[in-house]
Amino acid sequence: MIEITGRSYIAGQWVNPAGDTFQSFNPYNKESMYSFASCGSDEIEQAARAAENAFQKLRKLGGETIGLFLNTVADEIEALGDQLLDVADSETGLGLVRLNGERGRTCGQLRAFAELVIKGEWVQASIDTAIPDRAPVPKPDLRRMMIGVGPVAVFGASNFPFAFSTPGGDTASALAAGNPVIVKGHPAHPATSELFAHAIATAAEKCAMPAGVFSLLQGAGYELGINLVKHPLVQAVGFTGSESGGRALMDMAAARPVPIPVYAEMGSINPLFVGPSTLEAQAEDIATGLSGSVCMGTGQFCTSPGLAVSVASETFETALRHKLSEAPRGYLLNPQIAGALQKGLWRLKNHPHVEWLNESGFDDGSMTPPNSVFKTRAKHFLTDKSLSEEVFGPVTLYVVCDNEAQIIQVAEALNGNLTASVHADEDMELAAKLYNILEQKAGRVIFNGYPTGVEVCPSQQHGGPYPASSVSGATSVGTGAIVRFARFVAYQGTPQVLLPDALKDENPLGIYRLINGELSKDRI
Amino acid sequence: MIEITGRSYIAGQWVNPAGDTFQSFNPYNKESMYSFASCGSDEIEQAARAAENAFQKLRKLGGETIGLFLNTVADEIEALGDQLLDVADSETGLGLVRLNGERGRTCGQLRAFAELVIKGEWVQASIDTAIPDRAPVPKPDLRRMMIGVGPVAVFGASNFPFAFSTPGGDTASALAAGNPVIVKGHPAHPATSELFAHAIATAAEKCAMPAGVFSLLQGAGYELGINLVKHPLVQAVGFTGSESGGRALMDMAAARPVPIPVYAEMGSINPLFVGPSTLEAQAEDIATGLSGSVCMGTGQFCTSPGLAVSVASETFETALRHKLSEAPRGYLLNPQIAGALQKGLWRLKNHPHVEWLNESGFDDGSMTPPNSVFKTRAKHFLTDKSLSEEVFGPVTLYVVCDNEAQIIQVAEALNGNLTASVHADEDMELAAKLYNILEQKAGRVIFNGYPTGVEVCPSQQHGGPYPASSVSGATSVGTGAIVRFARFVAYQGTPQVLLPDALKDENPLGIYRLINGELSKDRI
Repeated sequence: MIEITGRSYIAGQWVNPAGDTFQSFNPYNKESMYSFASCGSDEIEQAARAAENAFQKLRKLGGETIGLFLNTVADEIEALGDQLLDVADSETGLGLVRLNGERGRTCGQLRAFAELVIKGEWVQASIDTAIPDRAPVPKPDLRRMMIGVGPVAVFGASNFPFAFSTPGGDTASALAAGNPVIVKGHPAHPATSELFAHAIATAAEKCAMPAGVFSLLQGAGYELGINLVKHPLVQAVGFTGSESGGRALMDMAAARPVPIPVYAEMGSINPLFVGPSTLEAQAEDIATGLSGSVCMGTGQFCTSPGLAVSVASETFETALRHKLSEAPRGYLLNPQIAGALQKGLWRLKNHPHVEWLNESGFDDGSMTPPNSVFKTRAKHFLTDKSLSEEVFGPVTLYVVCDNEAQIIQVAEALNGNLTASVHADEDMELAAKLYNILEQKAGRVIFNGYPTGVEVCPSQQHGGPYPASSVSGATSVGTGAIVRFARFVAYQGTPQVLLPDALKDENPLGIYRLINGELSKDRI
Repeated sequence: MIEITGRSYIAGQWVNPAGDTFQSFNPYNKESMYSFASCGSDEIEQAARAAENAFQKLRKLGGETIGLFLNTVADEIEALGDQLLDVADSETGLGLVRLNGERGRTCGQLRAFAELVIKGEWVQASIDTAIPDRAPVPKPDLRRMMIGVGPVAVFGASNFPFAFSTPGGDTASALAAGNPVIVKGHPAHPATSELFAHAIATAAEKCAMPAGVFSLLQGAGYELGINLVKHPLVQAVGFTGSESGGRALMDMAAARPVPIPVYAEMGSINPLFVGPSTLEAQAEDIATGLSGSVCMGTGQFCTSPGLAVSVASETFETALRHKLSEAPRGYLLNPQIAGALQKGLWRLKNHPHVEWLNESGFDDGSMTPPNSVFKTRAKHFLTDKSLSEEVFGPVTLYVVCDNEAQIIQVAEALNGNLTASVHADEDMELAAKLYNILEQKAGRVIFNGYPTGVEVCPSQQHGGPYPASSVSGATSVGTGAIVRFARFVAYQGTPQVLLPDALKDENPLGIYRLINGELSKDRI
């Protein structure tokens, strides 16, 4: 068993910061647990300088070495065993089943990035060969590929203590691109983060990584995050959380003397559309599927379906009400989320044009919210922007449309979303119209499915138009996430000895490269 | 001959805006020429709405149709004949030889983007096939590709009236990705822009493009550009120009309720490093090459080499001084640039630690500046940030280092640049050290070459760390520029009939796709 000490981890050293202390909170018994001290500017400075030093070493390592490190991090996370699950459960209330699954996903994505960088093709190598006798001017030899950007700051997310926190997708993709990472641990699960820091530290030592490859700065309050984003050595930021939090970081990063990109994955209401004929044919099935998706993780997913859009259906409404009311209540992560959810429920409950179909109690201070379904008519949804606001928790709003035309109107009125789902087996013409709209509104469009459960694979797109994401084209899930932390560099007329392996004539990595515009594994 | 009317072109109509009028300026005789009226908010609104309408049609067209349109634009530009060259020359003073070359490049890049989108592979299609019986949860079918973002605002650049203005690289790449374009014409060459609008309008008509596919808003002053960037229907911005101008647009775009990306290609001093032994062996050759690069386009290139870093060499210094003094003076684009250059020369001339090696007159109001070389010692360059500031024009600063270590120090002290060049045939160890530093500082690293003359090809990277570019990983030259105006979208469990061609099972486009992580042209 690893002792939880409340320290932070900076470039190979465990440190005791001098800042304010804070405790993690157990949602099951509402008791305070582990005590942690907050890092300040001194710790940021140490971590950033060590990261920059490490970057100069990391960028000389090949994909094999980086891949081995990522695989070893996964191994060491598994070696933490049940302690990791138990500590995380006590800090999040997410339950062991979910956390076990999330650990699998977290290790899986570390290994997926390891495979990606060992293969080496992710750099998008491209070679244009010289034409020395071209008129009027010779064509030079040009070669281009992606390289890492430098130290990356990653903000842990409260709702994914593994997969989007200390060793999560942002960290894995940033490390994979050859960058050191400074994690600002989420204050809701600091002990979980500390355990991960042990695993990463062990892996770094086993793989002889430079010390600054990873640091974990613990802290409550906003100042630590703000100062981390402002540090001149930090080159990019990964964040998963609220729209207000993400936007604040975006604004700060944009205002730096040297602006840097913030890859923030923020709010989303994840609309689910059901065609009228499909609803008639599959009302109970869709109600069952939707309610399962709404309740998953106590609704604390960025992909939780907060909106169900269709025509009126008594069967669907009844089934949805029953399913959600019967589903066991889960625990919320922390009192802040419980308080925000209570406000959200209260706002909908008191809305003159919204009906709470399965109204149920949610006392002040309770951590176990009702799984709730509200109902409104499309004409109200279309005229009241507040009904498009995300309510984070197990809540969905059934928007009843008069007809297909109104379903389309609702789709057109949406802001950016991570996902949009369409159930339309019996409504394929409507489906085509909806796809045309929704692919402009969401990062991922799902047919006959539910948005929760985000597959980690190369074709995943977890990121959509603002406010779903800060950079709508970027994904924070799947191997495509690596390009966020890399940039292209071109080499002109450069001798073989000065070129990276990916661009050498003989193609030593054996990767596909764009050669004069055509993909090929050929040597030059 | 097309009559220059001073009008703007909005979505198929020539309009007379009611705003302030301005004239274009002839650098040869310093006379005012064509008179134009500035567009205002009404014109922005019309252009933006038409663009959004057009986008909904454009996104349904295949690559063949878009490609045909781009090819036709190139044809119609060529059909403008000598009038285009004559008008542009009178508005820019760039000379017919250069403008003829730039026209070739402009048409060439339109055709390169046509070829790219006809081929269709640029969308980075990726397919992960389903595993329905995977435990604990089935794996869904996921497919991902890039699609256009919507209306793009392009700011014309004064120094490239063709290749980075109305029909330039930003316009070509935005159109190629299926986006309508609203050009804010540069007020220094409005008649040139008007001619291009004719060509694009004719091409749009021939290819039955929706009217809003292209608009040209003419205007002097900042307000038009500001309001264009702020318009909610505008989804991205392309800009080439000064750091202050680019940063202002970045800041405005970041402050929008829905922030949008600005792809600004800004200032750069494009350092050129010469190894000590190489300088000894090739002093005259490098002086000749460098001075040619400095004088090209009267130094009005973003890639103009503003810094030459090496050890002391009397031969090099003398040769450079002679070459630059002997080179014919060119014309500057406009009085603003002349004024700024005069200030820059004055600042260097009066710097206590800088010597003007070939001091020469440049009277107030003159449009033909001296081709200038200044000299300083590395110790001064390293301690005075002002010596790193770009002086836009035919000017270079010879930074004399004591030794190799100091050459490396200068490299490490650099800000972001578009390019960095290394001449080091006889100094390969130093070259390796410089490459390691310069690939972190610049978008393109050049061996034994000069930075002017930016090849348009897939491996080009014209964009580097800030302040060279706003988005360091993006390129504004070469076919890689298209991804700036596209975003990824994923389709989950989606029937064939709802999928774009690029993602259909049978691979109707015959393109390479990433299938379960492996590039292949296979059908599913």
